[in-house]
Amino acid sequence: MTVIIISINAGSSSLKTTLFIEEDDAAGNKNLRRLGSAEISAINQPPAKLKYKRGSYKDTAELGQIHDHTGAFEHALNAFVTDSEIPEVSKKEDIQYACHRVVQGGRFREDQLLTKETFDIINKLSDLAPLHNAAAVSLMLACHRHLPKVINVACFDSGFHQTMPDYVKSYAIDQKIAEQKGLRKYGFHGLSYKYMTRRIARHLGKPESELNMIALHLGSGASACAIKNGESIDTTMGLTPVSGLPGGTRTGDIDPSLVFHYTSDASALSPNSTKDLHISTAEEILNKQSGWKALTGTTDFSKIADPNAPDTHKLAFNIFVDRVVGYIGNYYVKLGGNVDALVFAGGIGEKSVYLREVVTQKVSCLGFTLDHEKNQNAAEGGDVVDIGSSDKQRTLVCETDEDYEMAWNTAMHPQRATSSTLW
Amino acid sequence: MTVIIISINAGSSSLKTTLFIEEDDAAGNKNLRRLGSAEISAINQPPAKLKYKRGSYKDTAELGQIHDHTGAFEHALNAFVTDSEIPEVSKKEDIQYACHRVVQGGRFREDQLLTKETFDIINKLSDLAPLHNAAAVSLMLACHRHLPKVINVACFDSGFHQTMPDYVKSYAIDQKIAEQKGLRKYGFHGLSYKYMTRRIARHLGKPESELNMIALHLGSGASACAIKNGESIDTTMGLTPVSGLPGGTRTGDIDPSLVFHYTSDASALSPNSTKDLHISTAEEILNKQSGWKALTGTTDFSKIADPNAPDTHKLAFNIFVDRVVGYIGNYYVKLGGNVDALVFAGGIGEKSVYLREVVTQKVSCLGFTLDHEKNQNAAEGGDVVDIGSSDKQRTLVCETDEDYEMAWNTAMHPQRATSSTLW
Repeated sequence: MTVIIISINAGSSSLKTTLFIEEDDAAGNKNLRRLGSAEISAINQPPAKLKYKRGSYKDTAELGQIHDHTGAFEHALNAFVTDSEIPEVSKKEDIQYACHRVVQGGRFREDQLLTKETFDIINKLSDLAPLHNAAAVSLMLACHRHLPKVINVACFDSGFHQTMPDYVKSYAIDQKIAEQKGLRKYGFHGLSYKYMTRRIARHLGKPESELNMIALHLGSGASACAIKNGESIDTTMGLTPVSGLPGGTRTGDIDPSLVFHYTSDASALSPNSTKDLHISTAEEILNKQSGWKALTGTTDFSKIADPNAPDTHKLAFNIFVDRVVGYIGNYYVKLGGNVDALVFAGGIGEKSVYLREVVTQKVSCLGFTLDHEKNQNAAEGGDVVDIGSSDKQRTLVCETDEDYEMAWNTAMHPQRATSSTLW
Repeated sequence: MTVIIISINAGSSSLKTTLFIEEDDAAGNKNLRRLGSAEISAINQPPAKLKYKRGSYKDTAELGQIHDHTGAFEHALNAFVTDSEIPEVSKKEDIQYACHRVVQGGRFREDQLLTKETFDIINKLSDLAPLHNAAAVSLMLACHRHLPKVINVACFDSGFHQTMPDYVKSYAIDQKIAEQKGLRKYGFHGLSYKYMTRRIARHLGKPESELNMIALHLGSGASACAIKNGESIDTTMGLTPVSGLPGGTRTGDIDPSLVFHYTSDASALSPNSTKDLHISTAEEILNKQSGWKALTGTTDFSKIADPNAPDTHKLAFNIFVDRVVGYIGNYYVKLGGNVDALVFAGGIGEKSVYLREVVTQKVSCLGFTLDHEKNQNAAEGGDVVDIGSSDKQRTLVCETDEDYEMAWNTAMHPQRATSSTLW
C-alpha cells in the first residue's frame, strides 16, 4: 500500500508543505521520496508568494487572496491534489499522515500522535510561545477539517534538547515559580539537530551514540548546539527562540533588563496580540524589531556577509561572528575537548563561504581547520561536505532538512501502524 | 607632607571605607599603607553591622541608628577621627582625597576628578543604573558636606572595559535608540580587573601590555573578563550587572523575554522606587530575588560549594560552574588560545577550594592545570598564588582589592597635584 506523508512547517509568516512517499530500497529498507513542495511566504504582508517544486520543475506565483496560514495550507493542498504530475496524490484522501512542526513542545521529548489530549496540551503551550506555536495550532485545526482521516503527528523543535542536564535547563530564578510556569531553557531547532546527528554519524561511520559535535544551525533564526554521544547537552536558545545568537530580527542574548530602558511600555500588549494570545511590546521588540534588520535594514545575510559591505553591515557581521565563536569555545569545553566535528548548517551556514571562513579561522586555536578550496566549492558537494583539512576533528557543511526529519520520524513512529485516526 | 586618601565603596546595602596614607619606599617609589577600614553592612535592614579594622585590631558592632549610606559614612568618618591609634587622622581636615567607586560610568574611561559637571553626568547615569549608582551619588554629596576641602575622585567600575571592540559592546538592537539611550554593554568589576592586571603582570614579570588572561571575579556579584595585552576585550556583565554570570541574588543571563512570563507586572514600578529613581518590578526580580538566594535560600556560597550539600544547593553550584566554564571556553577563543593565566578572584574565587577544583578540572581540555595541594593551601600563600602545575598557562588565585585600586589611581592621578578643590 502506498503511504503518503505531508509535512507542515509554519514560520511566523510562512508555510512550507512537502509531500513524501514511502518506498523500499533494494535492501528492503524504508526510504522517503519527495513528491513535491509548496512554500508560501509573506502571508501577513499580501500578496503572499508561492514557490512550488516538483522534481526539477519549479514555479513561482503571487497569491493575492491569502492572508493567513489556513488559507495558505488550503492553497498548497489544492495545488498538490490537482497536479497531474503527482499521480500518487489525486485526492485529499490519498494522504495518510500529516506531520506538524511545533516550536515549543514543553515537556514532550518524543514526537506525539495527535489526540484531543495532546492537542490541548500543545494549544496551551502557546501561552509560553505566542509568537511561535499559534500558526502550528491553526494548521492542526485546518488538517482536522480538510483531512479528517489523516493521522497527525506533532514534531517538536524542543524535544531533542530534553536530554540537557538540569543545571543547563534551569535558570537561576525561584524554582517554584519556574516549575509552575514552565520557565526553563527548552532550546529549539531540535528537528534540524536530530537530522544532522543521524546524517553526520552516517557520514563519519560512527554510531549516533558515540558522536560528539558542535552543530550550528545558522539561518535568520540561528542557534548552536553541543551534542555529546548523540544527545543535546546544551543549546543557545532558551525559554523562547529569542535568546542565544542574534538573528534576522531577534536580539539574541542581551542584558535581561535592557528592554525596560528601551521602552517604558515593555509590559503593554502589542497591537499584534489577540484575545487569546498575549504578546507584550517587549517580546515584539526583541523578536521582530531587532537583529540585523535593525542593524542594517536588511535580513538578507548574503548582503551582510560581504567583506566590502558598509560599516553597519560589518558591525552586524562582526556581532554575529563574535557570538558564534564564543559559543563554539563554550561548547568545546562542555564536550571536554572531545569533538568529532564542527558542523555548519541552515541557510546561512550552508551558503555563506565567507562566514565559514571567518568563524573557522577564529576557532583554529581549538584545532578546527579549513581547506579554502573545499569551503569555496561546498555547495556542489552533496548534503554533507568536509571542508576541513583534518580527519580527526572535522569541519563540515550539512544541508539540514527539518521536513524530511518530521516525515522520517512519522514513517518510523512505533505506534503509527496500530493507530487509526486518533482525533 | 602627609597625604591621606579615603576610599568609599558602596554596595546596594553596604559601605566600605578605608583610609590610606601615601609613603615612599626605600627606592623612593610611592606606596600606599592602609591605616584602617570600616565596613558597614545591612544598612537597609537595621541594625546595621560594623566591622572595624586597624592593623591587627578588629572590632564588630551593631549600629541601631543607621538606616542609609550617608549615616553609615558619617559613622565611619567619626570612628576614624576619634581613633587615637590613627594619629595621622585626628580631624576631618587631615583627609585630602576621597575616591568613590561608581558602578556605571557611562562613556568615562579614566577616573575623573569630581567637578560640578562630572557630578551631574554621574548623577544622570543613575537612570541607567538606578540600583547601583544612587548610593555613590549620595556619598559624594555627603563628602561634599562633611569634607568640603577634599578633592573627590570618581573611579568607574565600567571604565576598564571601554577598550572592548564595538561589536562586543553593541547589542543587536536598533542602533539609533541604543545611541540615544546609552544601551550597550558596559561591563563592571573594572577596578578589580585593573588591579589584577597590574598585580598579575608583576607576578609573571611581564609588562601589562603583553599580558593575556581570563580573569574571574567571583563574589555574590560575579563576572569574568577576557584581557588581551592588558586590556579588556570582553566581559560577562552588560548594560547592567545583572547579565552574564548568576550571583547571590541576580539571575545572570536568561531569556530576555522570561521576566514577562514570570510576572504580568514587569514594567510596573517596584515599591523601592523613589520620585527620582525608577526601578521596575522586573529589575527588582532580576537583581534582588534571583540567583542562589532564590535557588537555595542562602547567599552564603560556602554552604553551596560543598560536595555534601542538599540537592537545591548542588543545583545552584552546578549552574554556577556550568556558566563559568562556558565563559572560560568562550574567552579562550577570544584570546586565540594565547592565555598566560586563568585567575580566580573575589570572595568566592579566593575562598572556595572546591569551586576552583571543579572549574579547573572542567577546563583541563584547554590546557589549564591544578595542583591539588597548592589549591588546598592557597589562602596561606600571599596575594597571588600559583595553584597550577604548568609554567606556560598558569592557574592563579589573586586577592583582588578595589579599594586599593581606587586609592592607587588617586595617588597616581596626573592632574591631582595641580588641582584645588574642584567642587
